[in-house]
Amino acid sequence: MNISELIRKKRDGSVLSFEEINFLITDFIQGKIPDYQVAAFLMAAFIKGLNKQETSALTKSMLYSGEVLDLSSIEGVKIDKHSTGGVGDKTSLILAPIVAAAGIKVPMISGRGLGHTGGTLDKLESIPGFRTDLYLERYKYVLQKCGAVLIGQTKEIAPADKLIYALRDVTATVESIPLITASIMSKKLAEGIDGLVLDIKTGSGAFMRKTKDAKELAQSLINTAKSFDKKVIGFITDMNQPLGNYIGNWLEIYETVKVLLGEKVDDLLEVTLNLSGAMLFLGGKAKTIKEGIKISQEMINNGKAFEKFLEIVELQYGDVTFIKDLEKYPKSNIQEKLLAEKNGYVQLIDNYEIGMASLELGAGRLRMDDTIDPKAGIIFYPKIGKRVKKGEVIAEIFTDKAEKVDEVKNKLLNAIKISSQKVPPVKMIKSILM
Amino acid sequence: MNISELIRKKRDGSVLSFEEINFLITDFIQGKIPDYQVAAFLMAAFIKGLNKQETSALTKSMLYSGEVLDLSSIEGVKIDKHSTGGVGDKTSLILAPIVAAAGIKVPMISGRGLGHTGGTLDKLESIPGFRTDLYLERYKYVLQKCGAVLIGQTKEIAPADKLIYALRDVTATVESIPLITASIMSKKLAEGIDGLVLDIKTGSGAFMRKTKDAKELAQSLINTAKSFDKKVIGFITDMNQPLGNYIGNWLEIYETVKVLLGEKVDDLLEVTLNLSGAMLFLGGKAKTIKEGIKISQEMINNGKAFEKFLEIVELQYGDVTFIKDLEKYPKSNIQEKLLAEKNGYVQLIDNYEIGMASLELGAGRLRMDDTIDPKAGIIFYPKIGKRVKKGEVIAEIFTDKAEKVDEVKNKLLNAIKISSQKVPPVKMIKSILM
Repeated sequence: MNISELIRKKRDGSVLSFEEINFLITDFIQGKIPDYQVAAFLMAAFIKGLNKQETSALTKSMLYSGEVLDLSSIEGVKIDKHSTGGVGDKTSLILAPIVAAAGIKVPMISGRGLGHTGGTLDKLESIPGFRTDLYLERYKYVLQKCGAVLIGQTKEIAPADKLIYALRDVTATVESIPLITASIMSKKLAEGIDGLVLDIKTGSGAFMRKTKDAKELAQSLINTAKSFDKKVIGFITDMNQPLGNYIGNWLEIYETVKVLLGEKVDDLLEVTLNLSGAMLFLGGKAKTIKEGIKISQEMINNGKAFEKFLEIVELQYGDVTFIKDLEKYPKSNIQEKLLAEKNGYVQLIDNYEIGMASLELGAGRLRMDDTIDPKAGIIFYPKIGKRVKKGEVIAEIFTDKAEKVDEVKNKLLNAIKISSQKVPPVKMIKSILM
Repeated sequence: MNISELIRKKRDGSVLSFEEINFLITDFIQGKIPDYQVAAFLMAAFIKGLNKQETSALTKSMLYSGEVLDLSSIEGVKIDKHSTGGVGDKTSLILAPIVAAAGIKVPMISGRGLGHTGGTLDKLESIPGFRTDLYLERYKYVLQKCGAVLIGQTKEIAPADKLIYALRDVTATVESIPLITASIMSKKLAEGIDGLVLDIKTGSGAFMRKTKDAKELAQSLINTAKSFDKKVIGFITDMNQPLGNYIGNWLEIYETVKVLLGEKVDDLLEVTLNLSGAMLFLGGKAKTIKEGIKISQEMINNGKAFEKFLEIVELQYGDVTFIKDLEKYPKSNIQEKLLAEKNGYVQLIDNYEIGMASLELGAGRLRMDDTIDPKAGIIFYPKIGKRVKKGEVIAEIFTDKAEKVDEVKNKLLNAIKISSQKVPPVKMIKSILM
């Protein structure tokens, strides 16, 4: 097979076979095809697109570039959830114990925060002692023992994705639905799951700002999952404002625990219970998503979800005393309140800016090698459609970086648009695709 | 300036400024931009195109990546010709002495043969002693002294073109009209010329097989030449059969000398005199191309063109005794005649195959580092529309490679389609663009 000929075909809009795509991926990761040829291919694929079969073929090649976990020794149905990421999105932390408590195995491989979005691994690691770098036997043991396990991607999983993503990042070929699909699905399918619930975010704090693009990505992910005979449901959910009120690593663990203990955080609960409900439906524990939601709520009410959370933390070497006594955690040097400057209704929130403000305070990373401050972040109260009064506390900021405080306060104030007119609340679940 | 942003712009079909294109080219040749980013840019440019201004900007950046010759110390108007190459195309060898004899300076930088096409430098170097690697002072001296000089590209001329061409060659981004335009024009403009005649070939032995593509390339080259205030005329000429009858390096010198001495080779003369006529018209020596053709013919008839050819050969260190006595040249070990297998009219010639047959005999190169046999080649008589009789000699082959003879004979026979119906001759000059 000839790599130039293959680039030419994609350049001219032809459809490539599995063999052709597999040749490109396997020879690339073996160093037989230079990166400039793959860069030219990626640009051609970006512009000309990849159809369903090509996307599935690319996913398969990338998946089998590394290890595919075999969880057949572990009893029960294994269902995971994937989110495209956002601001304050701690749904994984809440739904993993809920779903595990209801009898479905949740083998979850998560990512780190980058830019305005947070990452599940960083949040978990804010718990003293918590480890996300379990070796395979421990990973299986935790999953078998308590029904859920949350780790980071290992270098054995889809190594092609890492190489290709690095190249896409510097060649303006990131925002391509087929390429994003293959990147996400090659990692998720390596987990050895039976089914997957997708949470595709849309809005000012999402990667896919437009609902149209989010739907297109969801459909592409669903098609690919189905081509691998996986059960799948896709949700399009709102990311025009932070999910819940807490943003930042430990702050999100804090809110997670509160919710698992029964606190009602409406928007966060609505999204989380829909996702966990769908996981229980896919796993055969509920006849409908609605029934799955009911079971999920019960797992909170009867305390089993919180118990499961403690169990996960303990099995992953976390210090549960911080979970049992949330106030024990170290505090930021600076804790400041931000007050509303006028009366009115919250009309718009620039959620990207909220995420970036949290990053500035120390909670996030601009580059993968930046270090983060687990205590830092924001409690952010405004919700679109809600009334605020002049002088009311709309946010609290937590940081050790005194020099950032004024800048962040301004950023937050500028990110909220207050209207004198009434504004309808946002719909959290935009659509459900199967 | 940010290279990713620039790739993104072209990817999305935006128009880049001169500053942006110049940043890409200059930083690339300084090694500040890696080849994978340029590869992604080239693919985006290939698919989304470059407009007139962008093509001119790319040409300018590539031109000024190296030296631009200053020929202002040499009196007279300087006009060159560029051809996209073909089979048996020895027009440069004939027109350079004609045009110089008529009082126009011809500073010509030529290329080598690759694949099915021959190269002017290889043909000239088949003359014992002839050198095409003159240093700059000698180049100027020869041009001043006799009015024409023919050399190869030096490493000082448009180094960006060499780097970018090498990358295009392996990333399926060769056949792009704006990229071809910038590659050709950056080298031609570096010659320090006042005007340029373009010979864009079309047909089975041409780089641009379709007349539509040839016209598009001609128009792009013309637009770019004009944007640098150069006088320019473009010809679209036929390459559906070899130009003249001789193919191979020394064989083409042989036919050149015969034509300069007055032999009538209709198709070759028609194209050559049109091109030289246009050069004389652009240089102000003729009021029309037609008058330029008349003057060109006179230069042959009065022997001045042949005298000029001898002068060029002598000044470029060639042994003129071989030109004065053509039979003195060493002969190929094998000289075989090919006979027509049936009666009829020549309907089609696969000219690409004729060029490849000549290469097989030793006259050409598959890779730039292959060596060539200057004696090898083909005398090929059939012309589309002409009658052939069974048993008539249709070609003579010259080679030292005995093992290639049968294969080449078959190739040649298969490349000619004979019809029982009358076939009209091809029109050599398809169009003239200014």
